[in-house]
Amino acid sequence: MHEIVERMKQTDVRALARAITMVENDHPEKLALLSDVFSMKKQAIYVGLTGSPGAGKSSLVNRLLTHIRAEGKTVAVLAVDPTSPFSGGALLGDRVRMNQHFTDDGVYIRSMATRGSLGGLSRATKDSIRICDAYGFDVVIVETVGVGQSELDIMKVVDTTAVVLTPNSGDVLQIFKAGIMEIADLFVINKADLHGVGKLRALLRELVMMSATEEHIIPIVKTITTENKGIDELWEKINEHHDYLYSTNIGKKQREQQLELEVYELIREEIWRDIRVFMEKGADLPAIEADTDPYKLASDLFAKWKKEGGMAT
Amino acid sequence: MHEIVERMKQTDVRALARAITMVENDHPEKLALLSDVFSMKKQAIYVGLTGSPGAGKSSLVNRLLTHIRAEGKTVAVLAVDPTSPFSGGALLGDRVRMNQHFTDDGVYIRSMATRGSLGGLSRATKDSIRICDAYGFDVVIVETVGVGQSELDIMKVVDTTAVVLTPNSGDVLQIFKAGIMEIADLFVINKADLHGVGKLRALLRELVMMSATEEHIIPIVKTITTENKGIDELWEKINEHHDYLYSTNIGKKQREQQLELEVYELIREEIWRDIRVFMEKGADLPAIEADTDPYKLASDLFAKWKKEGGMAT
Repeated sequence: MHEIVERMKQTDVRALARAITMVENDHPEKLALLSDVFSMKKQAIYVGLTGSPGAGKSSLVNRLLTHIRAEGKTVAVLAVDPTSPFSGGALLGDRVRMNQHFTDDGVYIRSMATRGSLGGLSRATKDSIRICDAYGFDVVIVETVGVGQSELDIMKVVDTTAVVLTPNSGDVLQIFKAGIMEIADLFVINKADLHGVGKLRALLRELVMMSATEEHIIPIVKTITTENKGIDELWEKINEHHDYLYSTNIGKKQREQQLELEVYELIREEIWRDIRVFMEKGADLPAIEADTDPYKLASDLFAKWKKEGGMAT
Repeated sequence: MHEIVERMKQTDVRALARAITMVENDHPEKLALLSDVFSMKKQAIYVGLTGSPGAGKSSLVNRLLTHIRAEGKTVAVLAVDPTSPFSGGALLGDRVRMNQHFTDDGVYIRSMATRGSLGGLSRATKDSIRICDAYGFDVVIVETVGVGQSELDIMKVVDTTAVVLTPNSGDVLQIFKAGIMEIADLFVINKADLHGVGKLRALLRELVMMSATEEHIIPIVKTITTENKGIDELWEKINEHHDYLYSTNIGKKQREQQLELEVYELIREEIWRDIRVFMEKGADLPAIEADTDPYKLASDLFAKWKKEGGMAT
C-alpha cells in the first residue's frame, strides 16, 4: 500500500490533497497509487453538475452541500476550472462563497485545473473522484462550467448528471447538440423565479418525453437558490436516480463500459510517457526547421521506435 | 504522389474535400497523403479568428471574404464547430449567410467537426490548413467559436490570430485567463457602434501595453460588420502582422517550434493506432467487470505490450 494511501486511511486531509496533486502532475507512481485507491473505494454517490456559465451552479452546489451535511453525510466537491478563457469560468467570488464550508471537516472542496497531466483535465478529475471516494466521502460532486468534450468525458464517470438551465438563456436550443441529452439524468431549472420558467419547463418536458421509457422519465426540478427552494427535491431526485441505476443493474453496466474505455485511455497515457522518454534520449533526432515535413519525420521516428521495441524505460 | 494529391494539383475541389475527410477520419494513408501535401505548400497566409459566442465572428469572416476576394486573392475558410453544446456554437444561420460565396471558385468553406480522428478536432484542422495551402489558396482563415484547449492548440499553427470582442460582453476579464494573451496577435472590437466601446478600447489598450515592445504593439481594430466598417483596416493589420513575422524571422521560429510539437503529436497518434490494433487482436484481454481495477489492468497490459514489442501491425 502506497504511503499516501496509508495516510488517507487515517483521514489525513493533506494526504488526500497530495494524492490529487500527484494525479494532476502525472507522478511516476500514479498508477500504483490509484490501484491502491481503487481497492479502497466505498461506493460514494458520484454526482455531476453542469450547465452554461451564469446558470448559478456554484450557488446551487453551495446550497446542496449544506443540505447534504444536514443529513450527516460528508461531501467532496471537485470544481473543474475550464481552460477556456471565454466560457465564463467560475470567478473567484464563486469559490469564496463556499468559504462557509471551509472549517467543516465533512466537506472537501478542490479546484481541478489542467497542469501537466498527459491525460488532461478529464483524466485527472476521474482519478480524483475515486480518490475522494476512497478517502471516505459519502458524496462526490463534480461541478463543471460548460460542457466541452472533456466535461462530457468526466460526466461518463459520475452516476447522476444534473444539467442546470435558467429561463430565457437560450440553452435549450443547444441541448439538441452534441451529446447533452445522452448525459443528462436530471434537469434543474435554476433561478425559477425568473420570467419564462413555464416556457422552459414545457420545452424540457417535450425533450425528456422523447427519451422516456415506461419505467423512467428524466426528472425536471425547479430551484431558486437565493430562497433555498427546491434543494430538497433536487437531492431527493439525485438519490432516486442513484437507486434506479443500481436496482436495475444499469449503473453496474455503465461502470463496466466506462472502465473499459479508461483502460485504453490509461494505456495510451503510459505509451505516450514511454515515447517521450524514448525521444528525449534519442540524440539522433534531426533538428527541426521551418520546412521540416512533420508527417514524414513522425512516420520515420515511429518506424524506428517500433523496430527498437518501445523499450525506453 | 498520392492520387488525391495529384487531383488536387489539377484544382479538383472534390479532391480537396476528400483529402480533408481522409484527415478527419484518420484514413490509414493519412500520413503519406499529408507528407505529399506538405511538399506542395505555397506559404498561404494563415489567419485565425476567435472570440466568444455572439461576438459576430461569422459575419466578420463573411465581410473579410468579400474584401479579400476584391483584391483577387483566393480564400479557404475552416469553420471549427465546437463539440460543446453550451458554447453557443455557430448556428445554421451563420453558415447559410456565407452562401453568397458558394458559387465562387475562389472561396472554399468547410465546417470541421470531430469525427473519428484520434488526434481530435485540432489535429484535423491543422492538417486541413496545410491541405488548403497546398491546393493553392492565398489565404486560409480558421474560425473557431470560443477558445477551449483545442482552439488554443489550433491557433498555434496560424500566423496571425485575431481575437474578436464586443463592448460590454465582459470578455476582457476572461482574457487574463489561460493563454489568451499569448495567442492574440490582433484585437478586434466588433459591433463598435455599441455603447461601451470606449471603455473596452481603454481596457484593451492597457492590456496590450503590458506586452508591448519597442518594435511591436498588438493592434486594436474597430469593426462594424453591419455597416462594413473597419474591414479594410482589419485586413491591413493582418498583412502587417504577417510581414512583421516574416521580416523578423519570428514567424519562421514559431513554425519550427510548432513543427516539433506536431512531430510528437503525430507519433502519439500512430502509437495509439498501434496499441488499438494490438488490443483488438488480444483475445486474452480479460472481461471487464464493475470492480475491475482499470489502473492495474492498464499497467499489466502496457507491460505485456512492451514485452511483445509494439509489433502489432
